[in-house]
Amino acid sequence: MTGISFTDALETAIAQSWALMEEIGRRTRGTIGITRPPYDAAEQLAADATAAALRADGLSAAFDAFGNLHALLPGADAALPAVGLGSHFDSVPDGGNYDGLAGVMAGLAVLLAARRSGQQLARSLRLVGLRGEESPWYGTAYLGSRMALGHVPFATMGALVRGDTGRTLTDHMAQLGFAGQEEPVLTAANLACWLELHIEQGPLLIAEDVPIGIATAIRGNIRHAHAKCHGGWAHSAAVPRAYRRDAVVAVAELVMAMDRFWSERLAAGDDNFVATIGQFSTNPALHAMTKVAGEVAFTFNLGATDAVVLAQAAAFTRATIADIQARRGVRFEMGSDTGSQPTPLAADLMDRLDEAAGALKLGRHRMPTVGHDAGMFAQAGIPSAMVLVRNQNGSHNPDEAMEQADYAAGVRVLARAALELAQ
Amino acid sequence: MTGISFTDALETAIAQSWALMEEIGRRTRGTIGITRPPYDAAEQLAADATAAALRADGLSAAFDAFGNLHALLPGADAALPAVGLGSHFDSVPDGGNYDGLAGVMAGLAVLLAARRSGQQLARSLRLVGLRGEESPWYGTAYLGSRMALGHVPFATMGALVRGDTGRTLTDHMAQLGFAGQEEPVLTAANLACWLELHIEQGPLLIAEDVPIGIATAIRGNIRHAHAKCHGGWAHSAAVPRAYRRDAVVAVAELVMAMDRFWSERLAAGDDNFVATIGQFSTNPALHAMTKVAGEVAFTFNLGATDAVVLAQAAAFTRATIADIQARRGVRFEMGSDTGSQPTPLAADLMDRLDEAAGALKLGRHRMPTVGHDAGMFAQAGIPSAMVLVRNQNGSHNPDEAMEQADYAAGVRVLARAALELAQ
Repeated sequence: MTGISFTDALETAIAQSWALMEEIGRRTRGTIGITRPPYDAAEQLAADATAAALRADGLSAAFDAFGNLHALLPGADAALPAVGLGSHFDSVPDGGNYDGLAGVMAGLAVLLAARRSGQQLARSLRLVGLRGEESPWYGTAYLGSRMALGHVPFATMGALVRGDTGRTLTDHMAQLGFAGQEEPVLTAANLACWLELHIEQGPLLIAEDVPIGIATAIRGNIRHAHAKCHGGWAHSAAVPRAYRRDAVVAVAELVMAMDRFWSERLAAGDDNFVATIGQFSTNPALHAMTKVAGEVAFTFNLGATDAVVLAQAAAFTRATIADIQARRGVRFEMGSDTGSQPTPLAADLMDRLDEAAGALKLGRHRMPTVGHDAGMFAQAGIPSAMVLVRNQNGSHNPDEAMEQADYAAGVRVLARAALELAQ
Repeated sequence: MTGISFTDALETAIAQSWALMEEIGRRTRGTIGITRPPYDAAEQLAADATAAALRADGLSAAFDAFGNLHALLPGADAALPAVGLGSHFDSVPDGGNYDGLAGVMAGLAVLLAARRSGQQLARSLRLVGLRGEESPWYGTAYLGSRMALGHVPFATMGALVRGDTGRTLTDHMAQLGFAGQEEPVLTAANLACWLELHIEQGPLLIAEDVPIGIATAIRGNIRHAHAKCHGGWAHSAAVPRAYRRDAVVAVAELVMAMDRFWSERLAAGDDNFVATIGQFSTNPALHAMTKVAGEVAFTFNLGATDAVVLAQAAAFTRATIADIQARRGVRFEMGSDTGSQPTPLAADLMDRLDEAAGALKLGRHRMPTVGHDAGMFAQAGIPSAMVLVRNQNGSHNPDEAMEQADYAAGVRVLARAALELAQ
């Protein structure tokens, strides 16, 4: 046994992991924000720096065939499934430093502290640093976790093309030496549970004045990335209202209908629905101030933690579109739905995180969260939970921020729960 | 005197003018549509071809300092102000052949027929082929008529820059040999009235099954070409409704409010209002399916033939925007208003056109119209009226079309009224 307590070792490891996170941020920041594309140099830099920090303390650090970084602090009983910790290395284009990376650093801190304080645990602690969680690059999310958990055959996933490079995932992976494989590497047989720390990405914890969020579920989505509304181009002043097929008015009516649906859900006491039309664009090659818009391209994104609410929202959307089409002479073409079903998280793990935060006298708030790798673990039958950390300015933008003290609070909650689960 | 009747001469001249119009169309058509930029080669080609046709019959044809083409069939009393006929030569980018050119060809047909049949008129007939009526090129409309009528000093107008070439109007005019001048060339002293034939540009005459429209007024506009709504970029799923400042929802709400205002005007029996949001675009550099839109750029275009209705619409817009801003935490920045006041047309000239159509047993419909050079003449104190001709597929697009028979009907109405006014 060493002479250092886990508590003291954890504070040192938290400070070290924060410094490493800031260093990775500095080294992967462009002129606007952080850019760590999946399976590319900047993401690999983050993974290599993490591996180096693990190895410096004598911990194993190895990449699987999908490029995910694994480190194991062995428990007394090697046959017991491990307690999994981690998150993802990559970022959106010109995003922030903490979305993803904070969860890997948190897991790193727990493993370093446990090793340095000579913890005798029954179960192993397994840190997994995942790749390619963000969707803008390949048009779909959770690349590393879905391949590692066997949700999607490697052959299918590898054929995806990265939008900005035009090259396949297989090609980008091969360039870094990752060949992929068909067999999953993470299963319920080797992981007893998955605990993921992640920045909140929203303003609720600031408003509630508490540092810790405990995720109750991962919202499911109905997502149309390439929806269109086809109307008729016409002279703005010469064409009377009855003859118009105005695509802008038609899509605006859909936007307002979804906004109304949302406000009615809230009035009914249900706060788990969200609706976002993030893109709404007339065709720049054809639109004009003096032309009725004949075409609008838009995105359509609904979320709910409850599958019944999501199905109701889908039915309401269909009925609204049919009604608008009939009255306004337009045609909606929603395109494929890349959405997902809501994913419940493990209630006993939520309670354990809650108790850990309580024992540490930290304010916390239970809340639904958005899509994360944790959802992929849960869908693979591995009980999963998430510690959300209060952060400023949302995420997916260069202004994303987090107080070091809030990060430290989150890691303490994660560490306490992880050690209890491993004992 | 010649032995040919005016009626017979007119039919020949209509056929000739139609053929010339088609020829000019063929020679100024690009791969998509007709493109005759103001004060550029294709517009000059149209003017030169018209001048050649006039001169072939011994009529004078001369350009003023602003590049407008003038032809005079002298009346018996040279001191009397003339009856003016004409329209414009230019087109929008990739537009159709008839918007503007049809009115010049119609005036040409009337002058040719009057000369060939040896009409003895008290007043002169003056054909004016105008330049630069369309706004996309220099960001403002009626260049030729506004300079010729003295609405805007040449020094001011000449400094305008053409968007696609980056060169000034003065520069483009000089290249064709037009130096401009400060004195107007068209005044109530030399023009007794202005009669302009123009395609309808809308579907109403087709729906009404009549070939002829008689314009009752030129709509005024409230026009914001560069309006913006500033909200806050945010994560689509992590940010609850109460914290959103969604620019798409805010502008959609404005769109629907204007649509409601319009439908309430119609319900109240007032059919002279129009509202168009022709452009509506989130920022392509920042928007995403998973981001609440922090910014929308849009155009805002209201029209009314009644100044009181236009003022009511402006007040409604201001109140709606203030309300949306207060509720949704967004900020509208409407930018400059490039609109105009409604312009009434001359009631006695309307009646005369109506009687001419009646005498010719042609169905006709009185209706407001959009901005035309005729409005500039009316605003200069020259009594003005317009013959609208049924046409297919609107205008400002390559599919714009017109039946030759409808053109002929319109020219006959114009000719009958013009001769009566000149006698």
